[in-house]
Amino acid sequence: MALSTAFTKLFGVQHPIALAPMGGSAGGALATAVSRGGGLGLLGGGYGDREWLARELPIVAGGGRPWGVGFLSWAAGVSALEQALEYGPRAVMLSFGDPSPFVERIRASGAAVIVQVTDLEEARRAVDLGADVIVAQGSEGGGHGARRGRATLPFVPVVVDLAAPVPVLAAGGIADGRGVAAALALGGAGALIGTRFQATAEALVDPSIAEAIVRGRGEDTERSGVLDIARGARWQTTKYTARSLGHPYLDRWRGREAELAADSRARRAYQDDVARGDVPPLPVWAGEGVDLIDDLPPAADLVAALAAQADDALARAGRY
Amino acid sequence: MALSTAFTKLFGVQHPIALAPMGGSAGGALATAVSRGGGLGLLGGGYGDREWLARELPIVAGGGRPWGVGFLSWAAGVSALEQALEYGPRAVMLSFGDPSPFVERIRASGAAVIVQVTDLEEARRAVDLGADVIVAQGSEGGGHGARRGRATLPFVPVVVDLAAPVPVLAAGGIADGRGVAAALALGGAGALIGTRFQATAEALVDPSIAEAIVRGRGEDTERSGVLDIARGARWQTTKYTARSLGHPYLDRWRGREAELAADSRARRAYQDDVARGDVPPLPVWAGEGVDLIDDLPPAADLVAALAAQADDALARAGRY
Repeated sequence: MALSTAFTKLFGVQHPIALAPMGGSAGGALATAVSRGGGLGLLGGGYGDREWLARELPIVAGGGRPWGVGFLSWAAGVSALEQALEYGPRAVMLSFGDPSPFVERIRASGAAVIVQVTDLEEARRAVDLGADVIVAQGSEGGGHGARRGRATLPFVPVVVDLAAPVPVLAAGGIADGRGVAAALALGGAGALIGTRFQATAEALVDPSIAEAIVRGRGEDTERSGVLDIARGARWQTTKYTARSLGHPYLDRWRGREAELAADSRARRAYQDDVARGDVPPLPVWAGEGVDLIDDLPPAADLVAALAAQADDALARAGRY
Repeated sequence: MALSTAFTKLFGVQHPIALAPMGGSAGGALATAVSRGGGLGLLGGGYGDREWLARELPIVAGGGRPWGVGFLSWAAGVSALEQALEYGPRAVMLSFGDPSPFVERIRASGAAVIVQVTDLEEARRAVDLGADVIVAQGSEGGGHGARRGRATLPFVPVVVDLAAPVPVLAAGGIADGRGVAAALALGGAGALIGTRFQATAEALVDPSIAEAIVRGRGEDTERSGVLDIARGARWQTTKYTARSLGHPYLDRWRGREAELAADSRARRAYQDDVARGDVPPLPVWAGEGVDLIDDLPPAADLVAALAAQADDALARAGRY
C-alpha cells in the first residue's frame, strides 16, 4: 500500500517523500537511492558548480526513475540549469531568491517547477509564477532558511490554502514517518526531507558529519549567520541564516555578527582553525528533527520505512 | 464519530482537544463551553489570583462536564491550588517552573496531573514525577514559553517516545482541525489550543484583542521579553519569553532587553502610555497559527468544528 497524493501522481512516484536538494551532500548516489526507494530524489545543485554537476548528473540520470535537481536562485546561473536540463530531470527546485529567471527554461524542457518558500509573500509569488509544486519550509529545518522564518506546523496549512490546487510539500523538522504523516494531515501533498537523509549510506558527507547527526540533539541546533560570515560564504546573512549543530565559533560570536563581518582577522583565524583541524571543515547543518535520527541506513530502505511509518501513524491517529 | 485517544479515554471526553489554561482569558465561561463542546476546558488560573478563582471556579464547576485548571508553577501558591481542588477538577495543569510542590496534593484529590514541558529535560522530570499527561509546547505558540524553545512538529514525537505510555498533548501553532490531525499523526493523544480560543464568544478578553487576533498574521508575531520587562511583569525574562502580535515597545526596544530593564524611566513611560491609551493595556499574546483564525465563533461550536476538520484531514491524508 502507498499513500497517494497530488505529488505522487504528478511524478508517478510511490511515496509522498522528496529528498531536499542539499547542496553538495545530496549527490547522484543519494538522489538515485531515494528515487529507487519510491520517493523523488532531488540532486543538490546548490550554487551551480558545473564540475560537481558533470560528475553527479549522469549518476542520477542513469537511475531509471523520476528525479530532479535543486538550485539556489540567488547563486546558480542559467548555464548550470541548462547543463542539468540536458539530462532530462522531471523537476527543478528553486530556493531562496527570485526564481523567475529560471522558470521559462524549465517549463520549456517539460520539467516541473518546484519553488521553495519561507513566507506568504514568497508563496503568493510562486503561485503567480505558475509553480507546479510549492515547498513550505519551516525554520526548524537544517541548513539555510529565512532569518525570520516560520514554524512548519502552522505555516504549511496557510500555504496550502493560499496555493490550492497547487500541491504543497512540508519541509523543516521532518525526520520520521510521523512527521511525514503530519505533513499530510496538515493538507500537504508530501514531505521534503533533508537532515534525515544526511545520515544515510549514500550521502556525500564526511563520516564525522553523519555521526554528529546521529549523536546530535535538537536542542543543540541553532540558527545563525555566524558560521557563514566566519567561513566567508556568499550567503546574505541579513536575509538568511542556517541551522547547525553547536560550533565553537557560534559560542564565540553569537549575537555579534556585524562585528565578526567587520573583523577580517577573526575570519582569517577561522581558516587557520580549519587548516589546523581545530574546527571542522564544514558546519554540521542539521534540523531540530535530529533527535529522531539514530542510524545510518541505506536511503532506499529509509524511504520505504518512512512511508510505512507514515501509513501506520495515520492509521493510529484515525482510530475511533 | 469521534477520534479516540488515551487522552479522551482518561477524561471521558469526546474530542482530543484541550483548552490552554490562558491566565485571565480562559475563564469559567470559556472552559465550560469547551467542555460542553466535547473537549477538556482548563481554567486559566495563572498566578493563582484568589479573587479571580473565586469568581470563575463556580462557573466551570457547575457545567456538569469534566474540566480542569492550570497554574504557573513558579507563581501560584499551594493555597490557590487548594482553593481550586475544593471544586473538584478532573485535572490540574502545571506550567513553567518546578511542578513538584503541587503534585502530591493534586494526586491526593483524585485529579490528574498535567505537566507542560518545553524541553526534553523537563519532559524527563515530568515522567519521573508521575505526570498523567504531558503537554509538549512548541515555541510557535502564543504567550509565554521557554526563551530557547523547540518547534512543535519535531518536538512532539521525541516527547512521545520519551514519555510512553504517558499520553502527550501537542501545543503551539495549532489553530484548526488540520493542526489537531497533525498532533495525532505525530503520536500525540490530542492538542492543547490557546490563541484560537481567544477569538471566541466566551473568552475573557477585550473585544479589541479578539479582533486583533482575527486580523493578525503569523509573520507579525514575535517572541520577546521586552513587553514583560516594560510592563513590570514578574516573569523571569532570561528564561521565558512570550509571543505576541506587533507592539510599539517591541519596535522601540527589540534586542535591548537589559537596557530596558535598567531604565526605570522607560518603564514608567510604558505605564503612562497605557494610561493615555497610546499603547494597549495588555500585549496581544498570539501564536503563529493566527493566520488560520478569521472568525469569533462560540467555543463549543469551535470544538466540534475542529474535531470534524481533524477527522476529515486524517481521512484525506490516509487515502490510497
